[in-house]
Amino acid sequence: MDRTNLPLSQDRLWDSLMALARIGALPNGGNDRQTLTDRDAEGRALFQRWGEAIGLTLTVDRIGNMVFHRPGRDPGRKPVAIGSHLDTQPTGGKFDGPLGVLAGLEILRALHEAGIETEAPLLLINWCNEEGSRFAPPMSGSGVAMGIVPEADVMATRDLAGHVFGEELRRIGWQGEADPATLRGIGAYFELHIEQGKRLEDAGLTIGVVDRALAQIWYEITVLGEEAHAGSPMAGRRDAMMAAAALIGALEDIARAAIGPEGERGRATVGVLTAEPASRNITPGRVWFSLDTRHGDPGQLEAMREQILARADALSTARNVTIRVEEFWRAPLTPFDPVLVDRVQAAAEARGHAWSRMPTAIYHDAVYCARMVPAALVFCPCHGGISHNEAESITPDWARAGMEVLADAVLATAGIARS
Amino acid sequence: MDRTNLPLSQDRLWDSLMALARIGALPNGGNDRQTLTDRDAEGRALFQRWGEAIGLTLTVDRIGNMVFHRPGRDPGRKPVAIGSHLDTQPTGGKFDGPLGVLAGLEILRALHEAGIETEAPLLLINWCNEEGSRFAPPMSGSGVAMGIVPEADVMATRDLAGHVFGEELRRIGWQGEADPATLRGIGAYFELHIEQGKRLEDAGLTIGVVDRALAQIWYEITVLGEEAHAGSPMAGRRDAMMAAAALIGALEDIARAAIGPEGERGRATVGVLTAEPASRNITPGRVWFSLDTRHGDPGQLEAMREQILARADALSTARNVTIRVEEFWRAPLTPFDPVLVDRVQAAAEARGHAWSRMPTAIYHDAVYCARMVPAALVFCPCHGGISHNEAESITPDWARAGMEVLADAVLATAGIARS
Repeated sequence: MDRTNLPLSQDRLWDSLMALARIGALPNGGNDRQTLTDRDAEGRALFQRWGEAIGLTLTVDRIGNMVFHRPGRDPGRKPVAIGSHLDTQPTGGKFDGPLGVLAGLEILRALHEAGIETEAPLLLINWCNEEGSRFAPPMSGSGVAMGIVPEADVMATRDLAGHVFGEELRRIGWQGEADPATLRGIGAYFELHIEQGKRLEDAGLTIGVVDRALAQIWYEITVLGEEAHAGSPMAGRRDAMMAAAALIGALEDIARAAIGPEGERGRATVGVLTAEPASRNITPGRVWFSLDTRHGDPGQLEAMREQILARADALSTARNVTIRVEEFWRAPLTPFDPVLVDRVQAAAEARGHAWSRMPTAIYHDAVYCARMVPAALVFCPCHGGISHNEAESITPDWARAGMEVLADAVLATAGIARS
Repeated sequence: MDRTNLPLSQDRLWDSLMALARIGALPNGGNDRQTLTDRDAEGRALFQRWGEAIGLTLTVDRIGNMVFHRPGRDPGRKPVAIGSHLDTQPTGGKFDGPLGVLAGLEILRALHEAGIETEAPLLLINWCNEEGSRFAPPMSGSGVAMGIVPEADVMATRDLAGHVFGEELRRIGWQGEADPATLRGIGAYFELHIEQGKRLEDAGLTIGVVDRALAQIWYEITVLGEEAHAGSPMAGRRDAMMAAAALIGALEDIARAAIGPEGERGRATVGVLTAEPASRNITPGRVWFSLDTRHGDPGQLEAMREQILARADALSTARNVTIRVEEFWRAPLTPFDPVLVDRVQAAAEARGHAWSRMPTAIYHDAVYCARMVPAALVFCPCHGGISHNEAESITPDWARAGMEVLADAVLATAGIARS
């Protein structure tokens, strides 16, 4: 692949990131621009001015997605889109989301300045409510656009204060009339995002060529034993806590031992646990915990499921307790488009950036897009894997590397018009 | 030991238990006579009437203990006391406490009817706030009387509604003027209590000859790891939950393997556990849990402590987490008086009740008494070990057996005056 000769400006990208970060700036360097707040509206307005300043046409759809349009020489070709999100967590960082949107903006600015036309039209998208911290679940804009989440459900979602999504969208003035489903006509979708993990940094790599999103199964596990006084002999107990601890220990072993065809292992996370009656000197009669399992290989994820059920059964018998393992939610393995993934990899190589193929264990708008249209996801590192945190940080060089790979892959897909 | 020829009435004991249980009766057969409530006062008044009806003299001390006095022929001898408590848990049973007090009452009724005088004076005590469910900690009356708990601290204790112990004691009209410390002059203390465990029933025994209260160490354990996304590889994680589960599993092994000189094993109970930030797809960065350890052999309890600390250290290193093991509270092994314990055993044998020596893992007023005066504790079975529960139940035969053993041991100690 040829390197694009675009006059991309690392400084202008960085300055734009810093300018946006002044909206909803927090004391410790982070940002609070939660979706559909006044600050979200302020961020959107700034983005609108920037796009219109380089002649882009904005449409806003019913779910609040902002879509800038740049015509291609061949209006019959499906558009090539770049997207991510400008909304943040309540104490989010400056880069989770904005990097992808503003790297796209910088690419369009450079095309504009160089007077370069592409064969296919280009889109630059700010997806509505990627974070989901205010209105859960996350990825509302891409979910509705790609037909994964019902529009009416999102519109009726309430935040903890009781505000309704649709009403807040109208209140801040960002509900448009376009049909979100139009975006299912995208020919190719590209997204640059910080990794939110440590794999790239630890390996000294600059680019993650993301080839798939892990399959997930979430469970809710309830252990029912019997309350007993802390003075009772261990032998006769039906202690739900001890049974839960044994099962959690087994979960870790099961995840580590689930090795996929590429040597990749499973993940098991117990994030929430409650014990009742929660008295220091009574053995818990009931322990409930969440379990999040993930794997890059769906077969291994199912194998993990079988082992978890078998282990729970064995522990039930051995400890005379009841263990209920209930599936709470699941998401399939989502592969990114092989052609676009190869193109991202070729761009990284051509630019001389150290790269690795990797799955994403975290969901992004690109994952929903990939279920409907050809899509690719590019990672750049972030320090210490820290994200959803004011301390989130990246280097300007990492931002530039990601932007370069994004630009090359987008232009290789859209085609540069040679007149 | 000779069987006492007292005309003890099983029926009158049972009727008294049932009569008391009508005060604060709950729909499912249990009782709510929490300490220093109007119902506690009502129960105390009924007990007062019963005692005075057989010529006993009541004194009430500053902490609210009710003490009935029956003179002995030799006023120079230290009194022999029988005691337990009439207060209950919020959804308590009919027997936890009342059995010991009302069995004592039946013994004094029988002595009264038979016109039997004892050499030593007799006391019958209703200890104030044994349960501790309303005003924590428990065993206020015996704790203050025996000099273990400061009187001023108990007086200033507040319940969850903000009521002050001393004010409530005065409000219900049961603060007296006697010095609780007078009770340190008791010559021998006896208490009958339901086992609140399954050991007697499971072994087909009727009497537990309690020879010691287990030594206890309570800990608070904090595991500090690092929050990570549930998609991150297991290998790099510092997951506080997985470390906690491994430690809890080890605790169980440590307790089971701590075998004392009489073959008795340790106990380890994790009753309360909290994980933060409590999100399904984030590995906990902090897990806190309580640990209650007990053993009949103090040396083994210390050995458990050493092993817990060593295991926590090893897990800290292996998992790159911080584990803080902090001692929260400890109670020494409390032996009951060997002479009085032998006397209880002899009484059980003479009556033909199947008995076993056993420790108590649960604290009672008798444990506090045993730290200051010669004391003994007698157990009778309760169904399924169920207690602190409306479903708590015993048979009239079990109640009678306990009362007979209590009577024989008390009279053997106080001496029957032969004129």
